[in-house]
Amino acid sequence: MKIYFAGSIRGGREDQDLYLEIINILKNYGEVLTEHVGDKNLSSYGQTNMTDEEIFIKDTNWIREADMVIAEVSTNSLGVGYEIGFAESLNKRIILLYREQEGKRLSAMLKGNQKLEIITYSKTEELKDIFDLKII
Amino acid sequence: MKIYFAGSIRGGREDQDLYLEIINILKNYGEVLTEHVGDKNLSSYGQTNMTDEEIFIKDTNWIREADMVIAEVSTNSLGVGYEIGFAESLNKRIILLYREQEGKRLSAMLKGNQKLEIITYSKTEELKDIFDLKII
Repeated sequence: MKIYFAGSIRGGREDQDLYLEIINILKNYGEVLTEHVGDKNLSSYGQTNMTDEEIFIKDTNWIREADMVIAEVSTNSLGVGYEIGFAESLNKRIILLYREQEGKRLSAMLKGNQKLEIITYSKTEELKDIFDLKII
Repeated sequence: MKIYFAGSIRGGREDQDLYLEIINILKNYGEVLTEHVGDKNLSSYGQTNMTDEEIFIKDTNWIREADMVIAEVSTNSLGVGYEIGFAESLNKRIILLYREQEGKRLSAMLKGNQKLEIITYSKTEELKDIFDLKII
């Protein structure tokens, strides 16, 4: 199974270590196409060895190729939001991972969308058991 | 002409006054379906008189109905990113408005996407002349 993992890059790298942990768990279930999202050397400046158009083409092709999109949506990100909309238009299965935060609410465009599966969690340790049930 | 204006709500309301100014300019060109995005009484908690599913259905129906989507993308927002992906899947014309900011870069998923028209600006005063050329 091919998994497209989506996390914030230019929207902010506050959760980079969390993305890395999630990607490492997801590797038990299939091939993660977007391992670079967890790379601690990748800053919010984004990839510098490719043009924006090259990144766009590569990422949208990976979404086309993926069996499933899993997006961490605790950090606001235009790119992650776009990827979810794009993946939905291709009828991909989409799972969102969200950590509840005081004073913050997940976008109604995601939370109110019945086609998205939303998993609320606190710590990455919880995810293995959830993925065992969800990712088949 | 019907215009869907997209701006950050739960992603953060730092640019609310700017959204209001842009909406007021856009009213010269057509009907703005999403005037509430500029409302100073609308906090990042979002609308409270509707469920998330009701908001999602209303907003996606407005995008279907719109002739054009204009999104302000200087604030990171999952909802705005999603709306752009959704509108693109319906082949809507999409214009992005972006203010260059020190140390920040617009998502490659938007900047590298040839189907989006990106307008870079500094002040809302510049937009009237740009819209006169762009919005027909």
